[in-house]
Formats: sequence, structure tokens, C-alpha cells
Amino acid sequence: MTFIIKVRCHNRPGIIHKLTEVILKLNGDILEFDQVTLQDQQFICRIEFLTATPYAHDELRPYFSDISQELKADLRIVNADDPLRMGILVSKQSHCLMELLYQMSVHYLPVKVPFIISNHPDHKEMASYYKIPFYHIDTTVPDKGEREIIEIIEQKSDFLVLARYMQVLSSPFIEKYPGNIINVHHSLLPSFKGGNPYQQAYDYGVKHIGATSHFVTEQLDEGPIIEQDTVQINHRHSVESIKQSGHWIEKKVLAETCRLYAKNRIIRSKAQTIIFK
Amino acid sequence: MTFIIKVRCHNRPGIIHKLTEVILKLNGDILEFDQVTLQDQQFICRIEFLTATPYAHDELRPYFSDISQELKADLRIVNADDPLRMGILVSKQSHCLMELLYQMSVHYLPVKVPFIISNHPDHKEMASYYKIPFYHIDTTVPDKGEREIIEIIEQKSDFLVLARYMQVLSSPFIEKYPGNIINVHHSLLPSFKGGNPYQQAYDYGVKHIGATSHFVTEQLDEGPIIEQDTVQINHRHSVESIKQSGHWIEKKVLAETCRLYAKNRIIRSKAQTIIFK
Amino acid sequence: MTFIIKVRCHNRPGIIHKLTEVILKLNGDILEFDQVTLQDQQFICRIEFLTATPYAHDELRPYFSDISQELKADLRIVNADDPLRMGILVSKQSHCLMELLYQMSVHYLPVKVPFIISNHPDHKEMASYYKIPFYHIDTTVPDKGEREIIEIIEQKSDFLVLARYMQVLSSPFIEKYPGNIINVHHSLLPSFKGGNPYQQAYDYGVKHIGATSHFVTEQLDEGPIIEQDTVQINHRHSVESIKQSGHWIEKKVLAETCRLYAKNRIIRSKAQTIIFK
Amino acid sequence: MTFIIKVRCHNRPGIIHKLTEVILKLNGDILEFDQVTLQDQQFICRIEFLTATPYAHDELRPYFSDISQELKADLRIVNADDPLRMGILVSKQSHCLMELLYQMSVHYLPVKVPFIISNHPDHKEMASYYKIPFYHIDTTVPDKGEREIIEIIEQKSDFLVLARYMQVLSSPFIEKYPGNIINVHHSLLPSFKGGNPYQQAYDYGVKHIGATSHFVTEQLDEGPIIEQDTVQINHRHSVESIKQSGHWIEKKVLAETCRLYAKNRIIRSKAQTIIFK
Repeated sequence: MTFIIKVRCHNRPGIIHKLTEVILKLNGDILEFDQVTLQDQQFICRIEFLTATPYAHDELRPYFSDISQELKADLRIVNADDPLRMGILVSKQSHCLMELLYQMSVHYLPVKVPFIISNHPDHKEMASYYKIPFYHIDTTVPDKGEREIIEIIEQKSDFLVLARYMQVLSSPFIEKYPGNIINVHHSLLPSFKGGNPYQQAYDYGVKHIGATSHFVTEQLDEGPIIEQDTVQINHRHSVESIKQSGHWIEKKVLAETCRLYAKNRIIRSKAQTIIFK
Repeated sequence: MTFIIKVRCHNRPGIIHKLTEVILKLNGDILEFDQVTLQDQQFICRIEFLTATPYAHDELRPYFSDISQELKADLRIVNADDPLRMGILVSKQSHCLMELLYQMSVHYLPVKVPFIISNHPDHKEMASYYKIPFYHIDTTVPDKGEREIIEIIEQKSDFLVLARYMQVLSSPFIEKYPGNIINVHHSLLPSFKGGNPYQQAYDYGVKHIGATSHFVTEQLDEGPIIEQDTVQINHRHSVESIKQSGHWIEKKVLAETCRLYAKNRIIRSKAQTIIFK
Repeated sequence: MTFIIKVRCHNRPGIIHKLTEVILKLNGDILEFDQVTLQDQQFICRIEFLTATPYAHDELRPYFSDISQELKADLRIVNADDPLRMGILVSKQSHCLMELLYQMSVHYLPVKVPFIISNHPDHKEMASYYKIPFYHIDTTVPDKGEREIIEIIEQKSDFLVLARYMQVLSSPFIEKYPGNIINVHHSLLPSFKGGNPYQQAYDYGVKHIGATSHFVTEQLDEGPIIEQDTVQINHRHSVESIKQSGHWIEKKVLAETCRLYAKNRIIRSKAQTIIFK
Repeated sequence: MTFIIKVRCHNRPGIIHKLTEVILKLNGDILEFDQVTLQDQQFICRIEFLTATPYAHDELRPYFSDISQELKADLRIVNADDPLRMGILVSKQSHCLMELLYQMSVHYLPVKVPFIISNHPDHKEMASYYKIPFYHIDTTVPDKGEREIIEIIEQKSDFLVLARYMQVLSSPFIEKYPGNIINVHHSLLPSFKGGNPYQQAYDYGVKHIGATSHFVTEQLDEGPIIEQDTVQINHRHSVESIKQSGHWIEKKVLAETCRLYAKNRIIRSKAQTIIFK
């Protein structure tokens, strides 16, 4: 069985020695070990290891509880063979949704998709093609359908992906949802926040456009950035063709982000993300 | 002899036919013809053609005066074999200066450099290595040395390049100088305008940094964008190593911009640039 | 109505003047004019123009017949509003097929897809989702099903796309088919021709892999290259993860190629392609 | 003081635990730990750590001798604050030489350059500008000047860089030189080996060209690849302008390779390189 441990704590000598002592006790064979000490003296690492014994997820935790307490560490253990459950919220545009579902179907994206929620009915057929439960939500009501959404997603998903979901989630919603929420914004943040970034890019006359995935926080388009990518444009581009070029990098950035997240390669630390690729 | 004509006017049928009539009269052989009609109905084109007759620059102009008046066109003719004179202003950091001088020395950048002006004495030796007159200017005086600069550059340069010149030029200076002024800013504009963009990028936690060349206008870091490029960074980067990565794209973007400008491939139109590569 | 003219002939002064004379006679308003004279003195151009009169496709041809004969030119006129019919051949892997169908469905790829032919039954459901006729062909027979394929495609398609079709087409087939055939090979040609290029790349220890689209000729993986793209890999990549990274650029390169072809932006000249983007 | 340990051995459980035990004994504070187990069960890691005690280089070695023997490991310890001595060989073209010297002069490339050897006298002035001893060698003699070169470089350099050195080094020379030799080839290997790769690329009609750095072995253009990069070209490129575009990525790839090598981030394993960036 393959397990992944992610650790975040204040740095001090000997942490790796202690962590590997526990893994050795479990007869674990380390496949990949990545560590970095940030400038603010945060110690961050990710360890992927194999065990011959088929430990249950809960059996491993006690082995690490002593060291976890001693280091006051944020230490997480996951079984790499258990796919995460990735809930999807989407509005009208389908390119990101399509990519995620396709990548899941060919097992490039090692997740289960328990539901698709949309404020448009359009994607029902696609959801049914991929055999995913589809919920059409009315977001024109005062709470933007959030109560209804919470009911659907509670206990069904480990993280949420906003695959071009054009509704702003309320702070209570974000606080209430126990997992991470990942969004893709169609600009290279911090440029062109808010509405219609492709029009903004066109008006500004930039020669490169971008896409950014980030964790959702209470500030719109402001959470810790995960992945970014850019593409060159020129004077021949209209707003429409900028949009078409942009869709490529949006779906690439979002699919890659979900893959990294699903493989437990992203560690969130304050306003920053540490990604061990 | 090779000539280049750049035309900008309001669109209407028959412009290309008229332009090529004149070129045919000159027995010109067109090597490259690029044209675009923008969404605001501006007609923009660049024509590169060979003539067997060695026309002087001034001899050609009258041939195009009728059509130019008829179209109310901004029409420019240049002899592609006459290198432009590119003046350089630079502060402490030398990477852009170095690249421009090296590219000039191996004839990748088809320009003459009549002078280097700097508010630091450091680059004197490099200027002397490349046999370029060097002027060390005191920019701590009230007019930031601009009167002194104007005296040096007047009638000696066709365009100015700010190769990481960290002084803000005054509006009167910009208005007075007859040619274009090109700047490189070390961010992907409009992100991170103003001072210390690499520190800004680090603090924001972006995963891509960029560089932007643009024409200088009275608004700081705001003129029409010419070239941009980006490079990926990650959590391992310090501000210092972001700077090192950034220097690559700064010098690449600026050298490429100067090459395109020297080859008369950039046409400035309102807030936009049209670049025929 | 928007028309596109593509011209290829031996260079001489005055060609553009003559071409634009005809367009002026048609009251055509030129939107985009691209021209280049290659080193072997081939004149190549593409003109996109609007006419107020709704000419039928056949009405325009006579206007250009004189100049075409005079220049001994390969001159083609197309109505930009008539979508080309793009036939698809595909084997087991679906990423390219999926991308093409999706792009077509959202009108980024301005084509009609009259059929999908496959030597695997797997894509029937996807074809049906996009409402495209699907033909499952047995390629284990002596002629590899080519007789059957020719019957299906004759007069139904303007060009063929091999969206990862792993059968080698015979020379008679290639000769018989009247349109162009476009293939995507999963390497940066000329590296790693033939079978299993990702395994070849892994064994060689390269740090960049690529994808190449090209016109199909009788030589395997040898026709004129249209588009290429590359992606960085590292020591952490297995053959399987190289394949996953590669699929992104395969589908990107192929979809972009089909888009350029559909917009009549590709001109084939001997072993080379001229692409006016 | 900052030390770096690089380890390569057959994988088995407990290696990291043992290595960190020694580092803990030295009161070392680990800044960066990277490890990977390759598919052939090779364990490879790089550890960067700080010690408060200013150990001499030779003092540290005994601490690791037991574990090194037990694991039959290739284990190297270096003091990260001691710059490596990088010898340069160069022929006529100066772009790579220029970049390396410039990067060294601004301390982006943390090396000392003890000499420049060239079969052309041209770079004498540049060497003198950077205050590096310059040796002009006659390579038209039967042994291609190798005896003379060996005399110069013996004991003066830790590794050699062929910064576009167009002479093929003999097998005895390569065997005799105790350090690594790094070359840059101006194509994306394995495409276009041997002479004049830009002409080869032009003739082939590719749309991307590349550059490759690699360790020199007895097979020409065949040693383990370190870094690669590519750049897009189009039908407008002549062989000359391909060369100009190529020079950018040649010098970028080579300078980056030297930087990674100087920072002990490259581990050579059979035909492969493991690079911890």
C-alpha cells in the first residue's frame, strides 16, 4: 500500500530523522521525499512510502501522534490508493467541466466525481454521459441556492472545484464547507480581477493572457495561487479569439491543479502554496 | 536597395491597389506584405520591397505624396539598409545594457548606438569595451539631469531605450524628444506597476513572473505594450532568485523589442501596437 | 460575404497590384492580406476580403482566371462562410478525437464532421453523443479495410484527420483520396519516428517531449510539418506520465492545426508549409 | 556553513533515517531534502544543510564513511560556499562564452573561471575584460592541441564547459580529464546530430528548434542530457534568423546547466540525469 504524509511545522534540527524513524518502524519503503524550509522557518515536507502490510488508514495515525504533538505539526496521512471525491460546480461554459470529466474517465485524474451542480441546465446530458449525478440549482433566489448546495455536497465530497462557476460564494458557505475549494480565474492574477478579464486584457492591449487556479477564500479572486499559465496573443486577436486561446490554458491549469491536489502534492501555508511536483 | 513603407489610415476599398501601383512604377519587387484592418476600421500595413535603382531616401517620398494626402494616411518610408541610431539610458543594473551591446556587436541588432547615458559610473568600462561614448549624469539635481541629457541626445538618436533606467522621465522631456522612447518593466503589466515588482510578486505568491516592454508615455508604466514574456517560479524561489530568473526575460523582451523596432516591424496605433513578425 | 484567396506562383513585380485590381472590381474590402516571397522566389499570399454582393462561389472564379493563367499560379478561392467537411479516423485512444469533437461543438473549430471511422468499437457512444455517423471498420483484413473506408469517405469529406489512427495508410489510398490528410505524431519530428515514441523518449533520457502535425505522404511520419509543440519532463516521469503530458500537446497541436486548416491559413509548398496566423 | 550531500545507491528501507542520523550528530539544520527512488530501484538524494560549527571539508567525510560503505553508496560531500572552478573551451562563436562570463561577473553563476581556451584568437579581449587567463591553441596539429590543453587544465578546473567548442575531443582526453565535461548542442537531441543543425532544421521544415546540454562521453552528441529548451520558428525564418533565435536558447540552456551544476543539483546516473531544481 502507498501512503502519503504531509507535514508542516516550525523548523528545528532532527525532524526528518524522527519522521523516518516511524516509517522505518512500519517497514515503509520511501519512494519520494520532498522537503523545504521556507524563509519564515516553516518546515514543510511530503513523504510517499510503500508498506507491505495493508494498514488501514486509521491504524497509521497513532504511530505519528507522538511526533505530531511534539512538533506541534499539522501532519496528515492519506492512503494514496483511495481516490478523493471531487465535487464540481459549473455555470454556462463547459470547457473546464469537459476536461475534468474526460481526464477522470481515462484515469489521468485519480478522483471520483460524486456530483455536478450547475445554475444552468445545459450540462445535464454531459453529466449523464459520464454517469455523474447532476443537480440544477436556482441561483436567482436570495441565498443564491447555497442552502440547497450545502445539502447536496455535505459529506459527499472531499474538495470542491469551481469549473468556471460564475457565482460568488458567500463567506458563511466557504467557512461551513469542511474541505478546500479550488477556483480558476481567467487571467494571470493579480491582473484583471473581477468580471470579463478577456475584455479587460483586450482593452489594455496586453500581449500575453493567463489563467490562475487558487484556493477560494472570502476575498474574491484573492486566495493562495496554485497554478498559472500564459499564452501569447497579438493584434489580430479579437475578444472572441482571446477567449478561445484562454480556454486552453484555463482547462489545462485547472485539470493540472486537480491532478496535483488529488495526488496530495499541494501544501497550503498561509498565503502561499508549496507544490512538490 | 530595400525599402519599407508603413501605412496607417482609415480603411476603404482599393488602398493596397493604389500603394502597389506606386511600387510597380518604381519597379519594386515586394518581399513581404503584411496588412490588417482593425476592428475600429483602421487600415494598417507594412511593405518591404527591393528596387534595382539605388533611390535616395528623399527621392521616394514624392512618389507617395499623392496617395498619402488622398488617404490622409500616416505613411513612412525608410531605407532598410540605414541602421537606426539607438540611444541607451541605464541605471545600476547591467543585464539589459550588456545584452543590447552584445547583440549590436554581432549584428543581430541592426542599430548604431551613439551614446550610453547613466546615473551610475559603473558602466564606463563596458561602454569603452564596445567603443560607445559614455556620459555619467547626476540625477540628484532638481531637473534629474534632464537638461544635460537633452543636450547630449538631441539630433544624435532616432529612438531611446531605457535599459533599466530607474529615473522617471518628466512629461516635458518626453514631449520634447522627437523619437519614440522604449522602456522595459520587470513585471507582466498591468500587474505590479511601480517599484520593486519582484518583491511584490514574491509577496503575492504568484507562480509566473513576467517582463513587459512598452512605449513611454506620461503615465508611469502605462504606454502601449510591445512585447511580454513570462517564466514559471515556485515556492523555492527567494526574491533574489526571482530576480535572476526575471533578468533573462527582461533582456530577452527588450532585445527582441529593439530588434523589431530597428526592423520597422512595430506600428503604434493609439493605445495599441501592431507588430508584423 | 467573406472570401479567401490563396495564391502560389513564381515571383515577379506587380502580382499584388493585379490581384487587388480584381478584388477592387468586385468592390471587395480587404480584411487581411499576408504575403511572403520565399528564398526560392516563390510568391505566396492569402487575402481575406468582404463583398457586399452575395456572390456564389462559382461566380468569382472567372474574375481571377486571366491573372491565374498569366501567372501560372495555383490560385484557390473559397467562401469563408462555408465550413469544410472534416472526416476523422481514429484508433483506440480518444483524447484527440474528444478534443476535436468538443471544439467543433462549441464552434471553435469551424467544420462539419461527416463521419468517424475507427478500427475499434469504443468511440461509438461518443460519436452518438455528438450526433456523428460512426463506422467500425475491420483493419485486420488484407487491405486494412481501405476499400471500405474509401467507399465511406468518397465525396463526403474535404479533408481527413488521423486523430491518433495507428494504421499506416497505403500509397494507393493516399493518392486516391482527393483532399489533404493530416496526421499527428506523438514526438517532435524528426526525433522518435515510428512506434512508441514516448517509450523511445524515456529510454533516451530527453528533458522535452513533443508532438507534430503534418500532411500525410507516402513516407511514414515524413510529410510537411504543420505545427509542433513541446513540454518539459524530468526524472520523475515514468513512460505512463510522459504519455499523459504528451496527450495535452498532441490534442492541442492537432486541434490548432485543424482550426488553421479550416480557416484556410495553411499553404502547402513542396516540403514546407506556410502558415499565416 | 552550508554543506551538500549527494547520495546514489541501491534502494532499501531506512536510508534516509541513517543519513539524517549523521546530520543530526553534526547538529545540522536541513534546508532542503530531495529524494527519489527510480524505477530500477536506485535511491538518489540531495541534502542541503547548515552547520553552526565551521567544519573543514575533510572533517565531515569520516562521519559518513560507515554509512557510505554499508550502502555501497556513491556519496559526495561538498561545501556549498566553495565555488567550483569551471574551465571554458570555445571556438569562434561568442554568445555562450559571453553569457557565462557575464553571469559569473554578477554572481548568478557561483563559479570561478580559471581559464578560457580557444582555437580562435578572437576572444582574447573579452577574456581580458573579465580578467580571465586566455590560451589560444592551435587545433590544426595532429592531436588537435589536446596535449597542450591537458597541460593547461590539469589541476586547475573541477569541470569543463564546451561553450560552442567545435572540435571533437578524443576518447583518451575525455578519459584522462578527471571532472565532468559539459557540452551544448544546438538542436533538440536526438534530432539533428552532427554538423550544422540549424541548416538541417531549415531543410527539414520543422516549426520548433532546440538546444541541448549534455555530459560529454565518447559518443558524439550522445552523453546524458541535462537541459533542453525549444523555440518556435516559422516560414519567414532563414537559416541565419534560425541561428539568431537558436543562440538565445543555447546560451540560456548552457548557463542554466552550469548554474545547476555549480549548485550541485545534478546527479548523473547511467544514461540519465537527475536534477533537483
